[in-house]
This record gives sequence, C-alpha cells and structure tokens, in this order.
Amino acid sequence: MTQVFNFSAGPAVLPKEVLQQAAAEMLDWHGSGMSVMEMSHRGPEFISIYEQAEADLRELLAVPANYRILFMQGGGLGQNAIVPLNLLGRKQQPATIDFVQTGSWSSKSIKEAKRYAQVNVAASGEAGGFTGVPPQGEWKLSPDAAYLHVCTNETIDGVEFNFAPEAGEVPVVADMSSHILSRAVDVSKYGVIFAGAQKNIGPAGLTLVIVRDDLLDSALPICPGVFNWRAVADADSMLNTPPTYAIYIAGLVFAHLKRLGGVEAMERINIEKARLLYAALDADDFYQNRVAPSARSRMNVPFYLRDESLNDKFLAGAKARGLLQLKGHKSVGGMRASIYNAMPIEGVQALVDYLNEFAGR
Amino acid sequence: MTQVFNFSAGPAVLPKEVLQQAAAEMLDWHGSGMSVMEMSHRGPEFISIYEQAEADLRELLAVPANYRILFMQGGGLGQNAIVPLNLLGRKQQPATIDFVQTGSWSSKSIKEAKRYAQVNVAASGEAGGFTGVPPQGEWKLSPDAAYLHVCTNETIDGVEFNFAPEAGEVPVVADMSSHILSRAVDVSKYGVIFAGAQKNIGPAGLTLVIVRDDLLDSALPICPGVFNWRAVADADSMLNTPPTYAIYIAGLVFAHLKRLGGVEAMERINIEKARLLYAALDADDFYQNRVAPSARSRMNVPFYLRDESLNDKFLAGAKARGLLQLKGHKSVGGMRASIYNAMPIEGVQALVDYLNEFAGR
Repeated sequence: MTQVFNFSAGPAVLPKEVLQQAAAEMLDWHGSGMSVMEMSHRGPEFISIYEQAEADLRELLAVPANYRILFMQGGGLGQNAIVPLNLLGRKQQPATIDFVQTGSWSSKSIKEAKRYAQVNVAASGEAGGFTGVPPQGEWKLSPDAAYLHVCTNETIDGVEFNFAPEAGEVPVVADMSSHILSRAVDVSKYGVIFAGAQKNIGPAGLTLVIVRDDLLDSALPICPGVFNWRAVADADSMLNTPPTYAIYIAGLVFAHLKRLGGVEAMERINIEKARLLYAALDADDFYQNRVAPSARSRMNVPFYLRDESLNDKFLAGAKARGLLQLKGHKSVGGMRASIYNAMPIEGVQALVDYLNEFAGR
Repeated sequence: MTQVFNFSAGPAVLPKEVLQQAAAEMLDWHGSGMSVMEMSHRGPEFISIYEQAEADLRELLAVPANYRILFMQGGGLGQNAIVPLNLLGRKQQPATIDFVQTGSWSSKSIKEAKRYAQVNVAASGEAGGFTGVPPQGEWKLSPDAAYLHVCTNETIDGVEFNFAPEAGEVPVVADMSSHILSRAVDVSKYGVIFAGAQKNIGPAGLTLVIVRDDLLDSALPICPGVFNWRAVADADSMLNTPPTYAIYIAGLVFAHLKRLGGVEAMERINIEKARLLYAALDADDFYQNRVAPSARSRMNVPFYLRDESLNDKFLAGAKARGLLQLKGHKSVGGMRASIYNAMPIEGVQALVDYLNEFAGR
C-alpha cells in the first residue's frame, strides 16, 4: 500500500485501526457467522452494536439525560429541511427562523428554510467574504423566532465558532457536521445538534441528531413520518431500517476515541495540528488564509497560493508525496486541508514540510 | 467461522465473494492508499465506482435510456413521502393517489400518502388477510390519479405480483424493495421503481429510485431540496454526499450478478429455490403458508406451525443447525424464510431438510 495522507473534506480519513478491525470482522462478526451488513437491525447482535455506539457517543460528548441521540439518514443537507419540519410547530405559521450566516453551509440552510418559514438573517459575514463570525453583540435576533440556526464550523470557508451562541429562550440549532467530536462542547447550550457522519464520525449516509426532549413534539403535519424526530426517538432510531453498517463503523470510531482519551485529548492534539499548519501558512506571503485568527477552523484550512498559476504544480507535487485531496472546493477555489481527528500529526507535519519546500523556504 | 444460513428479511445475506472482496480492499482500494469509505465522492476514484455501479444496474435491469437511476437515502419508508412530494405537482391540489393494498408495506404507503393527497384504495386484499393480489380486472382506478402505487412484493406478508400492473396514462409507481433483481422486469411498464437496498442489493442506508424522465419535474414546493428527484438527477446523485460505501458494495453485488448470468439466471435459481421450499411446507398440514399459490413470493416465505406451541422449539433447533433469523415479523407472528438472491440453494435445502426432520417425516 502507498503511504498517503488524505486531506479530503469528507468523506474523509478514518483511523487505520478502525478499518483494520472492520476488515477482520467483515465476514464473521464475533463468531456470529454473519457480516454486520447482513444482520437484521432488530436482532440481538446488531442491537448490542447500536446500544454500545449510542452509549459511547453519549459519554464522549457528555450528552445530558434529557437529550435524545438519533441515528438518521439524509445528511446535513437533509436536516436543513428536517429541522424546520420538526420545529416550526412551536409557533403559529408562518413562523420565523433566525440565522447567523457564516459561509456556504449556513447559506444553504437559509435557502432551504425559506420553503417552510420566514427567515431573519440576524447577522451575516457575507459582505466580508465569510472570513469571520459576526460578534454576538451585533446579532439582530427576533424575539419570537422558532429557533436560531448556526453552522459552528463552515467546511468550505474554514470559519469556526469559538463560543457557544446564546439566544435566551429561543433554542439554538447547530450544524456541527465538520467539527463534532473535535473539541469539547457543552451540549446543554443547544436545543439541537446535528452532524453528517462523513467527516469526524464515520461513513457517509449516517446523520446524527441530538435533540433536547422538549423539542421532539413540534413537527408540522407535512413532515415525512420517517423524519419525525419523536417517531424516530420512540423507535430508538429503528422506525425504518437504519444505516446499520455506518452505525457499526461509527461505533468503532467512538470506541477508538475513548481509548485515545476522549474529546478533550482530541482537542489538545487538534489545537497543536492547527497551530502547526497555520504557522506554515502565515510564515510569509507565499500562502494566504483569509479567515480572522479568532475564527479560524481547526478542522478545515482553506488557503491560496499568492501566485495561483502555480496551483496545478502545487497539487501535482503534493500528490507525488502522497498528500491527497488538497484542492479547494470548486465554489471558492484555491486549496483546502481538512485535518479531522483521524489525520495524524505526522500527516500535518508532512504537509507543512511540503508547504515550506514548495515555497522555497 | 460457523457455517450459517441467514434467512433475515433485511438487512440480509450478501454474496460471500462480495464480502471477501470488500474485506480485502478495506484499507487500500486498487492501490489508492485509501478505503472507499475515505474517498471524496467527487474524486475520480469514487466517480469510477459510482459510474460502474450505475452502468451495471442499468444493464442488469435493461433500464431504458429515458429513465434515470438515482442513488438516494431514507429507505422505502422515506420514499413513501418522497414519491408524493415529487409527483403530486402533476395535478391540481388536492390530488388523488390510487393504491392497491396487498399487505403491510402498501398499507404503510397509504398512511403516509394521506399527509399530502387524497387516497383511493382501488383494491385491497385486507379482508382476505393479505393472502393474494386482487385481480386487476376488479381494481377501481381513478381516471385522474396523479399515479398508481403498488408494492410488487410484500416482505411481511409474502405476497408477490406475477404481472405488471396497467393503469393506462396514469404512471405506475412500484415499491420493489424486496424482489428487485430477483426476476426479469419490464421497466418501461412503470413510471417509477424504488427499492431499499438492504434485501437484494447491498447495505441498509441506500435507496434506489428509477424514474422516467418526464416525471422528474412535478415536485411540490414543500419537497425537501435534497429529495427532489430533478435536483438529484441533475447532480448525478451527488447533490449531497451519497452513501458512498453502500454504493460501492451494491456495485460489487451488481458485478457478481453479471458474472452469474444476470437477472434471468437468478430468476431460474429463485424459481427452483421457492419450489423446493413451498413443496416442503405443502407436504402435509404440519406447516402452513396461507398465500394463494399464484401470489406466493419467491423471496419472502412466511409460514406457521400447525401447533404454535412448538414455535420456540422449532427456532432453537433451527439455530442449532445454523439456520438463522427464521422468526416471523412481530406483526404477523409465525416464521418467515427470506430467500433472496444471495441465499444459496444449499441453504434452502438445509432448511427443507430441517423442516422435514422437525415434522417427523
């Protein structure tokens, strides 16, 4: 096998020991004679996998007892519709949703929410090219919003919240797809947290939703039954057949994170990885990251070469060194290094060495 | 490894050679240094996997050029909402949907459709305990229905259509979740075919939708963007991150089916497997399958012991012989043997031997 470091923004690198265990158990899980893929979701074998995954995630994120963890499908983009369909019943229709717009993902959420509600953009970083989080003191929140939506880490723009938003009695909904499990979070500050799995959790096709239990019963009548949080919660995420294999892999990742010391240990390593990488980008003006230092993401690091005519040469050289998937998102161009939990510090160091070499330092 | 035969209704048995290949490629797909789970869905490696899977499925089912194949999430239950949300715009609201009710799955589809439309049950097998398909001549179709919905194989009730429904100009939507790829189908007789993957295709969490292209543009405004068929088709199923690993496994299954001779070859084997099993059940009155012979499913074979006090003993003896997951669905009780494509005839023979032994024949 080629030794590579995979900087994809998602689906993304997974811990090698998780993949090794998955390969070893592929044809016979724990002497059952079955692959996890072949198990009934209602059988004792899979139920034990599911319950362990749920318990480990609850422990890793210190999820309070009055929150339910749902294993769903449809990705973060799906939740952009599923969240309003589940929460707008809290208010008379047409209801209002507050948004803080910090990049591509919160912008997509705004667009989708307009199908179902009035949207109030309480603050936006758009005029500044999405290079920071608007200061909380300047947010123009609606007094009667059904909820406030934030994307606490913008995968494309590389903008991350370094604080927990406050909205008084209005529940805060956070799309944490690209930084969940990378840092300590006080779940009790949020009404709903959701995350597509394919960055810090496991395979694409699994979506985690963590919901405070008083928010389970406000769905609109047009909410598809299979996406009704109350129905999913009451069925322990088995209202329909869940993405069983993705849950199994996620469970292996959770167990791996526990062995490494949990989210606090990951956060320490992630701070160090981000420090290394941003220092190399900031060393001179050969590279440029445009995000305000206080809002720089520890997970997704977009950057530009001063001389963009060198982009292809940069990418070819990176690939030759096994540094993969560094091309930036097509909507913003440039480069992007995603350095999720499963990216070892050796990978970041290899990228830093290449950045320095390519810049002729 | 224990030698077992897994009769689960889904998730269900997969071809052993598919699982072996998946295990071998888990850490390094084709020298890329990456697991398929770690690949960007927009990279050339995954795009090649996706395109091959799509092409092989199109060949296996002889899907005409004017049909799109969509790889989605949310399962069959999800499509119960997604289908009306995509098709009701064909008519003025409130529109009518025709249903033929043949068991648990079509009943669930009816319940969900009522959120969005008027429902006309054109024919129902409920009074007869769902033991057959109401004859087509007796269906009371609406002249102006948005579409006709049928479930051509009822997983729980073991009822299968042995003909393609006709509804004139009204498009026929078929839920083929539990018998897709098990028999030849004339796709051109249908407007939409959908199927959860976890029976005859691959892992849970992937849903196939095959749509005639004139039916892509009739979504209601409340249809979530991520489930809008036109948007999904235009993005080649990459509107959001698709369930990449499930698509990869499905692709391995498609390639495996092609090597075995395609759907026609599978149908011949499936006819023989079903013949063997029903003959053992019909040999005397020790066991009972209640479905009319013309509507008996080749995939899902529910049966009852005449003396139901022996149920636990029957299941324990089966398990001791490695014959797994034979317990019937909780809603109907009894037993059920699902004998999908990946169940070898040796597994059916082992079950038949046990049926005969247990009956003291």
